[in-house]
Amino acid sequence: MAIPPYADRMSEVRGQNLSAVSADAISFGAGDADPAMLPDISDIAADVLKKYRTEVLQYAARKGLPEMREWVAAEARKSGLRVTADNILVVNGAKHALDLTCKLFLNPRDSIVVTTPTYMTSLPIFNSYQVDFIEIAQDADGLIVDALEERLKDLKRKNARLPKMVYNVPEFHNPSGVTMSAERRAQLVRVAQEYGLLIVEDDPYRRIRFEGKSVAPIQSHDTTGCVIGLGTVAKLVAPGFRVGWVIATPEIIDKMASVKTDGGSGAIPQRFILEYAQRGRIEPHIAEVIATYRKHRDVMLKMLHEQLPGSSAIEPAGGYYVWVKLPEGVDGDELASAAARHGVEILPGRIFYATTGPKNFVRLAFSFNSDERTVEGMQKLGKAYAEVAHSLV
Amino acid sequence: MAIPPYADRMSEVRGQNLSAVSADAISFGAGDADPAMLPDISDIAADVLKKYRTEVLQYAARKGLPEMREWVAAEARKSGLRVTADNILVVNGAKHALDLTCKLFLNPRDSIVVTTPTYMTSLPIFNSYQVDFIEIAQDADGLIVDALEERLKDLKRKNARLPKMVYNVPEFHNPSGVTMSAERRAQLVRVAQEYGLLIVEDDPYRRIRFEGKSVAPIQSHDTTGCVIGLGTVAKLVAPGFRVGWVIATPEIIDKMASVKTDGGSGAIPQRFILEYAQRGRIEPHIAEVIATYRKHRDVMLKMLHEQLPGSSAIEPAGGYYVWVKLPEGVDGDELASAAARHGVEILPGRIFYATTGPKNFVRLAFSFNSDERTVEGMQKLGKAYAEVAHSLV
Repeated sequence: MAIPPYADRMSEVRGQNLSAVSADAISFGAGDADPAMLPDISDIAADVLKKYRTEVLQYAARKGLPEMREWVAAEARKSGLRVTADNILVVNGAKHALDLTCKLFLNPRDSIVVTTPTYMTSLPIFNSYQVDFIEIAQDADGLIVDALEERLKDLKRKNARLPKMVYNVPEFHNPSGVTMSAERRAQLVRVAQEYGLLIVEDDPYRRIRFEGKSVAPIQSHDTTGCVIGLGTVAKLVAPGFRVGWVIATPEIIDKMASVKTDGGSGAIPQRFILEYAQRGRIEPHIAEVIATYRKHRDVMLKMLHEQLPGSSAIEPAGGYYVWVKLPEGVDGDELASAAARHGVEILPGRIFYATTGPKNFVRLAFSFNSDERTVEGMQKLGKAYAEVAHSLV
Repeated sequence: MAIPPYADRMSEVRGQNLSAVSADAISFGAGDADPAMLPDISDIAADVLKKYRTEVLQYAARKGLPEMREWVAAEARKSGLRVTADNILVVNGAKHALDLTCKLFLNPRDSIVVTTPTYMTSLPIFNSYQVDFIEIAQDADGLIVDALEERLKDLKRKNARLPKMVYNVPEFHNPSGVTMSAERRAQLVRVAQEYGLLIVEDDPYRRIRFEGKSVAPIQSHDTTGCVIGLGTVAKLVAPGFRVGWVIATPEIIDKMASVKTDGGSGAIPQRFILEYAQRGRIEPHIAEVIATYRKHRDVMLKMLHEQLPGSSAIEPAGGYYVWVKLPEGVDGDELASAAARHGVEILPGRIFYATTGPKNFVRLAFSFNSDERTVEGMQKLGKAYAEVAHSLV
């Protein structure tokens, strides 16, 4: 059964064909949860399937369970947004939220603004909508809005097409770990409003903060409805629920619901989350996750300095990742291949750029492994690093 | 917060703005399950969230749980397909399967073949990909393949663009209730292969057969990989799981998985289904559903003849719906509006046509209501019918 000839719209997926790692490798690759942090909700599962049987097993409300939309809105208000349930659309995870946003707003050959580096999993989604990229650098305060404004001015001067949207992860940026400053967030909204850009604010890690104070979302500066917020329970409770959401104007939510043609996101996991929250278990759980992942981060940073001398990383104040700058001449792809041979999975920096980027970066996720496994994995990575660095001489 | 000006790709959704019905109306509208047929799986839910905690709460395999793909393949083999788990992609319900199929194969202004009438919920999905429609009629043996072949010949003669795919629900067609004959299925595959068309076979109702023998899927005649099968547990067990699948060549499955950017369909409902099947509960459940819905159908048909004199309907041998032909001059929209005033929801035939169709049809779903409620609802519908038919004179 050969693939038929009309299969002509198959988007290339970046980040595939990474170095093959063995099944028992220690993974610093994907941002999976530490299995010890996945809660036992068997009691809630039984209660929900009994008490809400006819609700959760039937087709669900297209925009999400009303109580779920209320809960998301209440959480968003705590972070500084002025929203109600009407501003919320429940979807199947934050990637689904991004896909729907693209489906609603993008046409082929539209351009969008991304950071260098950017979240690698957003790229196949953007590429499937056949967009062009405008890449803007970050510094310690996040996306450099002055640089973006210069580019927009330049495009306008040339009467060239302006980008449609800016995509960013402002809180504990994936992969860079940088948090965008409040000033920059306000400035980005001003620029977006001036040039008619939409801002897509992907904010999965907000609550996973190890120290310091949260910065209010970009969306809190929005007065015209130009910011679309994306959220998820993946990092709050567990990825397996596949429950995420969009925060936008009621008009956008209505339109997005109309292109959300999946028969309503499942009510089963929505009820699980609601019960978990209503029984007072979500906040203690998040506190435990923060304490655990802070320790994971500290262990990884300590091992990084010990095992990869000459490399450097910003100490992330939250999130799941360390973005490692290798010495000039040490290639992230080569290090990832060497690491795979030593039984460790890491992601080469290359896959985090929409077009091309520097070669001397890798991303390490500290979320998944126990501290013991992290120590063991980093020792193996150290051996791979020694080989790759040695081969340079 | 006004909607921003770049919201320029908002697809029109047909089937919206139907007659408003009150919350306590008797619904013959959507194909919801009879609440009495939604099983108590609270024991399975508790066991799965305990035993498979670290599997189901983590990110899931992109193509679906291996055991789930095996189970779908085994079920498909029972219906006559020669497939393995490699031919299966697990998705969030059959509508998601259709959306991914469009995403993979369609470009704006491609044309596709649909029946008159066709499944109304497929239309906003197709419209969101900006396709053109070629409409082909059905008779008692289903899609009239001779008519399709004539159209294709004609297009070829004129050197015009051929359609990319044929979409059909061959078993208990929604809404017409017709089942496509084996001869027509084989003929459709021959024509599709000759003209390089893809066939999308949407087959949710196969097991919900009240009498007679199942006809092997269109896909069983396929020797070149030109048929894509769509399936779901929605009608087998319950809609709320949001578990569906695609059956296609491994090459298509791989490509479709690469444009399925949602982080893997949730493992929780997949495990629920697997446990439900492995514990031997799925077959008795389907038998009960068949017996119950057969009775629902019989009650509705009896009431139809009693309450809507002059109307007619093919007695469907399975599925969820009765497609009612009203006497010439009785308008389906007017009947739906009158029914809403009497506290009954029905769907006007108009929304089941890609472009325009005859006005004298309505669809009644017999799945949802108890026999008592069906009797009551049909009596109310009879009053509405009398008003609309009377106003003609």
